[in-house]
Amino acid sequence: MTLTEQLQQKINQKTKPLGALGKLEKLALQIGKVQKTLTPRLQNPTIVVFASDHGIAQEGVSAYPQEVTYQMVLNFLRGGAAINVFCRQNHLALKVVDAGVKHHFEPHADLILAKAGMGTKNFLREQAMTPQELHFCLGKGKEIVQTIAETGCNVIGFGEMGIGNTSAASMLMSYFCQLPMEQCVGKGTGVDEKRLLHKIEVLKKAQNFHGTITDPYLILQTFAGFEMAQMCGAMLEAFRRNMLILVDGFIATSVFLAAQSIEPAIRENAIFCHQSNEAGHRLMLEYLQAEPVLHLDMRLGEGTGCAAAFPIIQSAVTFLNEMASFESAGVSEKSE
Amino acid sequence: MTLTEQLQQKINQKTKPLGALGKLEKLALQIGKVQKTLTPRLQNPTIVVFASDHGIAQEGVSAYPQEVTYQMVLNFLRGGAAINVFCRQNHLALKVVDAGVKHHFEPHADLILAKAGMGTKNFLREQAMTPQELHFCLGKGKEIVQTIAETGCNVIGFGEMGIGNTSAASMLMSYFCQLPMEQCVGKGTGVDEKRLLHKIEVLKKAQNFHGTITDPYLILQTFAGFEMAQMCGAMLEAFRRNMLILVDGFIATSVFLAAQSIEPAIRENAIFCHQSNEAGHRLMLEYLQAEPVLHLDMRLGEGTGCAAAFPIIQSAVTFLNEMASFESAGVSEKSE
Repeated sequence: MTLTEQLQQKINQKTKPLGALGKLEKLALQIGKVQKTLTPRLQNPTIVVFASDHGIAQEGVSAYPQEVTYQMVLNFLRGGAAINVFCRQNHLALKVVDAGVKHHFEPHADLILAKAGMGTKNFLREQAMTPQELHFCLGKGKEIVQTIAETGCNVIGFGEMGIGNTSAASMLMSYFCQLPMEQCVGKGTGVDEKRLLHKIEVLKKAQNFHGTITDPYLILQTFAGFEMAQMCGAMLEAFRRNMLILVDGFIATSVFLAAQSIEPAIRENAIFCHQSNEAGHRLMLEYLQAEPVLHLDMRLGEGTGCAAAFPIIQSAVTFLNEMASFESAGVSEKSE
Repeated sequence: MTLTEQLQQKINQKTKPLGALGKLEKLALQIGKVQKTLTPRLQNPTIVVFASDHGIAQEGVSAYPQEVTYQMVLNFLRGGAAINVFCRQNHLALKVVDAGVKHHFEPHADLILAKAGMGTKNFLREQAMTPQELHFCLGKGKEIVQTIAETGCNVIGFGEMGIGNTSAASMLMSYFCQLPMEQCVGKGTGVDEKRLLHKIEVLKKAQNFHGTITDPYLILQTFAGFEMAQMCGAMLEAFRRNMLILVDGFIATSVFLAAQSIEPAIRENAIFCHQSNEAGHRLMLEYLQAEPVLHLDMRLGEGTGCAAAFPIIQSAVTFLNEMASFESAGVSEKSE
C-alpha cells in the first residue's frame, strides 16, 4: 500500500461512519501526505504578519488613511489587534515584520526589521518596486522563514497589514486568474459604492498602462507591496522546508497565486483557512479549486483567518492520532 | 443606550474595519446579550452525550447494527471516540448518559445512569414511548443540567448516539417544519440508495399511521428516542438557567425544534455550531433562520460539531474582551 492508501485506511477505520468527519478527513489526509507519516504533528505553529505601505494609496482607493499601517503595527506590538488575541487564544507564536512601512519604528523585541523602503511607488504611473527591491524582499521572506523553521516550527501562516493592499491584490488576481478587473475588486476595508467605482477605474487604468505581463516576478514587481513580495518569498521557503502553509484571505491568496505560478507543487502544502467576505476571494479560491476551512464572512487580514482556523486544522490531526479504530474499540462495522 | 447598543458600539470601536470579523461579531453580540454584560465569559464548557436505542432500528433503516449504540458508549467511556478527542483538545468537560441503551453497563465514573428503558418501541406500529417515559426523560434531562450548572458551567452542548435516530429526527423535522418526508430523510450513518428509499417508505408509513400531531410533547412521545427526549429536557433547563446552548447537527437540531416549540425564547440562547452533511439539516437551519458556525460537511453526531466549533465561539468572546479600541490604540478611524 502507498502512504496515501495507508492514511485513507487509517481514517476509514476510525470509529465513525465512512467520511463522517467531512473536510477534517481531507485535511488529515493532506497533512499526513505532506509530513509523510501516519502520525503527523503540528509543531510550534507560527503566524508572521508582514506590513508595508503602498504608493497606490495616494489614489484614494482605501477607506482609511495611510498612517493606519504604522499605527496597526504598533497595535500588533502592544498585543491589541485581532491577530494578537487569536494567537494568544490558540497558542500560536506571532512575528511582525516591517517590510516597508512609511514610518521609523523604535527597536522592539517582537518586530523584525526588513524594510525595503518607505512604501512602494504608485503603480498607476510606474512599477511598484525595482528589481533590486523585489530581490531583497524575496530574500528577506526566505530568511525570516529559515529563522522560524530553526525553532522547530512545521506549520506557518502569513498575514499582512498595508493600507491599499487590496488594490495590489486585485491586480495580482486579475493577472494570474485572467479575470476582468470588475470581478477582482471589492470594498477592502470598507469603501462606499462611489469610491468602489473609483477604485475599479484606477486599477483598470493601471492595467492599461502596464499591459500584458505573464512573468510572475514581473507581476509582483509591478503591483505588489513589499509585504506581499516578502510573503511570497516566505511561502516559497516554507514549501522548500516542507512546512504546512496556512493561507489567509484575499491578499495572502493573491500572493499564493504568485508563489504557485513560480512553484506549482506548493499547492500540496497549502491549507486555505477561510473564505473572506472580500468580493473576489471566492473566485480566487474557485480558481485554485480550494476548499476553505472556515466561512465566517471575515475580511480583516493580519492572518486572522489562519489563527482562527488553527484549532480546526488541529482537530484533523488529533482525530487521526487519537481516535480508536473499529477493531481496537470492539465496535461492529457497517452491516450492509 | 441599551445594552445591545453598547455591545454594538464596543464591537464597532475595535481596531478593525466595521463588520470585518463577520459572524464572530454576531456571536459576540448574541453572547453579550444572553449574559447581559459587555464582558461575557465562557465558563466550564461541557458536552453531554445522551445515548439510547430505537425500536425503529428493527425496520432496517440504518447502515449499522443496533449493538453499535452500546459499543460506542463503551468507546466514549474509554476515551476513543471523536467527541472524546475534540473535548480533550478544546478543554471541554464530557458527560455520557445512558438514556435507554439496550445493554446493562457496569457502573463507571463518567457514565450517568438515566435509563428510561431498553430502547424505545417501534414507531411504525405504536408510540415510541409512554407519557410516563417522556415525563421521566424530560425530568432526567433537567436534573442532569442542574447538576452540571452547579459546577459553574454557563455554556453547554448536547450530543447523541443511537442507531436509528436519524429516522426519529426526520419524523420530528417533518412534523415541526411541515415538510414532506422526502426532504427530511438522509443517508444517516451511510445507507445506500436502495436502503434510503426503504427508509423514506418506512417513515412515510409511520406518518400515515400516526396522522396529524401538533402538540410538541406528543410528537416527542410518538417518535423521539429516550436520548432525544432527555436532550429536550436538558435544553429547556439550560435555557431556564440562561446558559448558552450549543446545538449540534441533524438530530440535536430536530430536538431543538421541539424545545423551541415548547419555549420559543430559547432561540436567543442557541448557537448553531455546524451545518451537517446529512440531507435535511440545511433545510432545518433555513427553517430556523440560523447561521451555522462551521461548514465542514461533518455528519457524525456525538456533539462533535459543538466541540469542534467551540474555539471559534471562544474567539468571539476573546476579541470582544481583549482587542484594543481605535481610541485606546491610537489608530485613526475611517477617513470617509
